[in-house]
Amino acid sequence: MKKYTSLSEAYKHASYPTIGHGKRNVQVLKEALEQCDGDLDSDMYGSGSIIEEFQEGMAQLLGKPTAVFFPSGTMAQQIALRIWCDEAGLRKVAYHPLSHLEIHEKDGMKELHRLEPVLLADETRPVLLTDVLSLKEDIACLLLELPQREIGGQLPEYTELEAISVHCRDKGIKLHLDGARLFEILPFYGKSAEELCQLFDSVYISFYKGLGGIAGAILAGGREFAEQSKIWKRRHGGDLISLYPYILSADYYMKQRLPRMEQYYREAKELASQYNQCHAIFTIPQVPVSNMFHVYVEMPKEKLEPIFIAVCELTDVGFTSSLREIGEKSCMFEVNIGDRYASLPQERLREAFLLLDERLRDEAG
Amino acid sequence: MKKYTSLSEAYKHASYPTIGHGKRNVQVLKEALEQCDGDLDSDMYGSGSIIEEFQEGMAQLLGKPTAVFFPSGTMAQQIALRIWCDEAGLRKVAYHPLSHLEIHEKDGMKELHRLEPVLLADETRPVLLTDVLSLKEDIACLLLELPQREIGGQLPEYTELEAISVHCRDKGIKLHLDGARLFEILPFYGKSAEELCQLFDSVYISFYKGLGGIAGAILAGGREFAEQSKIWKRRHGGDLISLYPYILSADYYMKQRLPRMEQYYREAKELASQYNQCHAIFTIPQVPVSNMFHVYVEMPKEKLEPIFIAVCELTDVGFTSSLREIGEKSCMFEVNIGDRYASLPQERLREAFLLLDERLRDEAG
Repeated sequence: MKKYTSLSEAYKHASYPTIGHGKRNVQVLKEALEQCDGDLDSDMYGSGSIIEEFQEGMAQLLGKPTAVFFPSGTMAQQIALRIWCDEAGLRKVAYHPLSHLEIHEKDGMKELHRLEPVLLADETRPVLLTDVLSLKEDIACLLLELPQREIGGQLPEYTELEAISVHCRDKGIKLHLDGARLFEILPFYGKSAEELCQLFDSVYISFYKGLGGIAGAILAGGREFAEQSKIWKRRHGGDLISLYPYILSADYYMKQRLPRMEQYYREAKELASQYNQCHAIFTIPQVPVSNMFHVYVEMPKEKLEPIFIAVCELTDVGFTSSLREIGEKSCMFEVNIGDRYASLPQERLREAFLLLDERLRDEAG
Repeated sequence: MKKYTSLSEAYKHASYPTIGHGKRNVQVLKEALEQCDGDLDSDMYGSGSIIEEFQEGMAQLLGKPTAVFFPSGTMAQQIALRIWCDEAGLRKVAYHPLSHLEIHEKDGMKELHRLEPVLLADETRPVLLTDVLSLKEDIACLLLELPQREIGGQLPEYTELEAISVHCRDKGIKLHLDGARLFEILPFYGKSAEELCQLFDSVYISFYKGLGGIAGAILAGGREFAEQSKIWKRRHGGDLISLYPYILSADYYMKQRLPRMEQYYREAKELASQYNQCHAIFTIPQVPVSNMFHVYVEMPKEKLEPIFIAVCELTDVGFTSSLREIGEKSCMFEVNIGDRYASLPQERLREAFLLLDERLRDEAG
């Protein structure tokens, strides 16, 4: 039997890790490049067929006039908000308190662009029309993150989105989609990317979440918006001489994985249901609305960690590589479903869940 | 005989192009990855052995406590200047009027960081001590670009650099090196990278100029400076989940080409000398001080372009892919020496220069 000294080590060496597509290693790039002709010219500072054709394809897929490739979503979204603020002559933008811009970007939007956030909703639920209606300040732009990652990937109802969109157009507020995981939510809504994007003035999507690319993002919108975004990309230092390593891999993995989003969604519901049958565990959302969810365990980390390690040692199934403490008595971790789940031996997974449940009950006494 | 309709087409199809290392195509990345183990883990938001070990090696090479990898020099340098300005409580930085920051970055430094440039020297020569001594304003930082690319890659004497460095330290002015082409100038100065960098508080170098990588940059300096630069990298959207495509290729091509800098420098002097023997042509500098120089031709573009095309058709030698007009009567283009030059058949090159000289004389009447 394998013996592990930490949860991350256990997960790393587990034969059956449950999360994601696979290891993030150099092979991911090598595989994407295998089918590429070496004679293909590099993009050059945003020009050239590699980047232009990819951008055209993405614009079409998202139903927007133009799409611009960016090295990161952090850069793309700050720029989107800056453009809308400059256009409106306002400095305020509204978003969820757990938006990527608010908690993961070292205040880049404030420090670089001097934009001011207005936080909507609370930390337990997505932004709803009622939050937007109760805004007391003029804002240039409302950013909606779908799904709201930091709360387990929750989503508002589609009718709610439609109502927010109508309201924003009425009020002259630009509506921006943080669609880092856009394709992952389409099966739940039963909509095409184009239909969903029609509700928004600008859209950002990421290539290394559900699509499993290496890095990179698209910012899509109108032609004038796109031209402005290219100027800001240069200013940010994001107009690299060559972005093709990210573009070619985005293209390669998108073709493979776009057709699997329905499957990931179904599997996320399946896996969440198994977690919810365990003692002291619940998921948020209870029934996932995308390929992701959060798992909460009402047990302190020092008790829970050895249980996950033991289950991994005995069954070779890896549930998570780390636990985040929630107060002193609980822990949580994030699950997103990728290619790995479909190749798990279901019998082994059931066995691992039975063992997990048993250990949790034993520990709880 | 080949027939071309444009200079760029001629250069692209020439069997003997004289500039650079080779085509910027996907093969450049494929080659760099060939010797990489696919199992190597990706860097993750600035952490992991790929990025950490590379940064340590670069810090050592440059003789600085710390080095941080950036996706671009545009980003790295704005951040360096911002850090020094914040530390000094000033918003002014001084640099050459043809600095990259002034002419190629859409005013990112001003628009994002609200820093104000003080322009030193004039557009024909590098910054000298006398320019720094005559500064009438307090500045936080002086940026020196070595070599000064937009004026043919000119350099001040080394004693001039030493004097500027001493002066800046005396006055509490931070000295930053725009060393996009740092390794290319070491043979002229007869110094190591470490010796040269000792004159500066912070140093930026690029991986896709003389080193021929794909993209990416290093910003080196003290530990506190490096920590600050990582925060700003995140704010700029440059802290990508994976930068390894650029890091692995930088590492691969640097190992190949660092030992060739002396050779490129010698070849640049050789090639410039041949240009200078042609009618109506001179180079700046007359004798190159790095692997680069600018070629000036006293002839209008509409007369010169057909000559270069004809020489290419007849000899298969490509001198340049484009001409920049200088007023109505002259043109210029940039030459940088890379791997290609050494593989040119010298007899063919001489033949091309003879023909070029002849046609220029004929045209001039």
